[in-house]
Amino acid sequence: MTDKLKPLREQIDAIDAQILDLLNRRAQIAQQVGHVKAETQAPVFRPEREAQVLRGVAERNPGPMGDREVQTIFREIMSSCRSLEKRVTVAYLGPAGTFSEQAVYQQFGSAVEGLPCASIDEVFRSAEAGTADFGVVPIENSSEGAVNRTLDMMLQTSLIISGEVAIAVHHSLMTKSGNMDGVTSICAHSQALAQCQVWLNQNYPHIERRAVASNAEAARLAGEDGTVAAIASELAGAQYKLGVVKGHIQDDPHNRTRFAVVGTLQTAPSGKDQTSLVLAVPNKAGAVYQLLAPLAKHGVSMTRFESRPARMGSWEYYFYVDVEGHVHDAAVAQALAELQGNAAFFKVLGSYPVSL
Amino acid sequence: MTDKLKPLREQIDAIDAQILDLLNRRAQIAQQVGHVKAETQAPVFRPEREAQVLRGVAERNPGPMGDREVQTIFREIMSSCRSLEKRVTVAYLGPAGTFSEQAVYQQFGSAVEGLPCASIDEVFRSAEAGTADFGVVPIENSSEGAVNRTLDMMLQTSLIISGEVAIAVHHSLMTKSGNMDGVTSICAHSQALAQCQVWLNQNYPHIERRAVASNAEAARLAGEDGTVAAIASELAGAQYKLGVVKGHIQDDPHNRTRFAVVGTLQTAPSGKDQTSLVLAVPNKAGAVYQLLAPLAKHGVSMTRFESRPARMGSWEYYFYVDVEGHVHDAAVAQALAELQGNAAFFKVLGSYPVSL
Repeated sequence: MTDKLKPLREQIDAIDAQILDLLNRRAQIAQQVGHVKAETQAPVFRPEREAQVLRGVAERNPGPMGDREVQTIFREIMSSCRSLEKRVTVAYLGPAGTFSEQAVYQQFGSAVEGLPCASIDEVFRSAEAGTADFGVVPIENSSEGAVNRTLDMMLQTSLIISGEVAIAVHHSLMTKSGNMDGVTSICAHSQALAQCQVWLNQNYPHIERRAVASNAEAARLAGEDGTVAAIASELAGAQYKLGVVKGHIQDDPHNRTRFAVVGTLQTAPSGKDQTSLVLAVPNKAGAVYQLLAPLAKHGVSMTRFESRPARMGSWEYYFYVDVEGHVHDAAVAQALAELQGNAAFFKVLGSYPVSL
Repeated sequence: MTDKLKPLREQIDAIDAQILDLLNRRAQIAQQVGHVKAETQAPVFRPEREAQVLRGVAERNPGPMGDREVQTIFREIMSSCRSLEKRVTVAYLGPAGTFSEQAVYQQFGSAVEGLPCASIDEVFRSAEAGTADFGVVPIENSSEGAVNRTLDMMLQTSLIISGEVAIAVHHSLMTKSGNMDGVTSICAHSQALAQCQVWLNQNYPHIERRAVASNAEAARLAGEDGTVAAIASELAGAQYKLGVVKGHIQDDPHNRTRFAVVGTLQTAPSGKDQTSLVLAVPNKAGAVYQLLAPLAKHGVSMTRFESRPARMGSWEYYFYVDVEGHVHDAAVAQALAELQGNAAFFKVLGSYPVSL
């Protein structure tokens, strides 16, 4: 075997030497980029540029290496080069080891300084004060319900969204015993119950479902009471010594949590972007429909629409809207200008590349 | 600015195209390697080869890119190429999101199939049964005390150690309130108390210290009782809603947990290896000293020596010994042969590359 492998390994070693050389030439140019940016105080991290590079290598990838693998390698290459310009610090909802930390690495690669914070508010404060260059916060979280606090903070903050990251989230059914004997109720956050609805209807149609404050709370209850089953992450289950009855029970196997990257950076168009807004109108019939008319008129697609009760002020609801495209696109700019004219409250949260 | 950046970015794009080309040429050769290995049923993952490549690129790295960053990139390149030969499955002590999972990625890169297991025993069983190609188990764990179970399993298993991984571990002092008002005791696993001794003597010399079963248990106690402070990971603290009084209090800022990679693979010499053994002698004065004499005689350095009470059999202690070098090195082979002659029990756990 060694005879056949040896020449192949020599070829690999030769290729590695060339890659090493190219990596360092790339790093040298990155340093020059850093000097140019320092002169003009331009930002080190350009999400639109990195998104373009990652999309580009996947498009041009002839194989046999997989597109995903190629992107993972290039994310690390950009992360390393960027750290030579300046080490980027990113605040996130700690502690270390959570999905939030995973989101930081997925956006910035490993050559980044993570700053775990105790609360979503602290993530915003760190990025507003400049202690961190960016913050990463859950914006649409299927299990922890953290989205509300993030949305509230988005209304007040001077920060804008410069990117988004999606992370796969899995739910498991767990009990103290690891089986369903004697179980009379299944507990979880209402969103998690909803996300596992089809599976629960098929498998445990007659067991009562109970919505509790969080999936972690459900796990805690199940740890104390053998008649309770919890739907939660296996990480939460392990903390309360639960056994897994069945893993990955969410109806959508591609269930994801979205995180927003917030900072002071205006992201330039990358070619495949979306724009997030918050709007409010006085509460009268037809007002919402009327409000959104400019989007249809200018052919701008709405990819997300979510209403949320206002906690103060003179209107009853805020509407969180995502649209396709960048504020620098003519159609989006015109639609938003008209939309702003109709709205009682209007704030652009940011334009940024659609997550990979 | 754009004028100055544009030519630099074009250079980077040209370099990226070359890197992409080289990555795919490397992947093609990796596929050929896979065919050769398949013919001869040779293993896909060769820890000694990967350790050599990683050491080699760091040694030959001219900069400006950092050695660590270069190694991270090449770990991902090898992981991607290896997954084209065959996707490697690795069992680890779950759930996902723990240090054990981090150890898997640090050894195998991201293009690997992780298999979270509920216990250390199950990790061994998965790798013994061939459900997983390898298992990753904590062998010297500063906080969870898992080491004992791993050491016991090492005595019985047919698996050998084919690699090791070291992961940084941090301890924090935490309470329900986030401050030390009214705190009368500090709880943690005895190993964690020992690791924070100097700091505790300087800062809280008069507060009673209490050893409990695990740091997670300490966190649970602190969550229930405001007079208790816990030393634990921030991840454990967050589960019990504790506030951080002070982070990173361990006396050694480079505190690490070591993990063993176990499997059926005999790792060939990489040039910088160590060998792990278990020994036993009848309990008589001078026996241990005599036992180890062959190491000194053949100039083999001992890097670790740990005794552990036997739970059965005719001797009282097992000795876990790490020595520098590989069993294929002449000096090590001679020393071990003589050592085996002196010992009542003798088992080589494996020779493998020293962790980076």
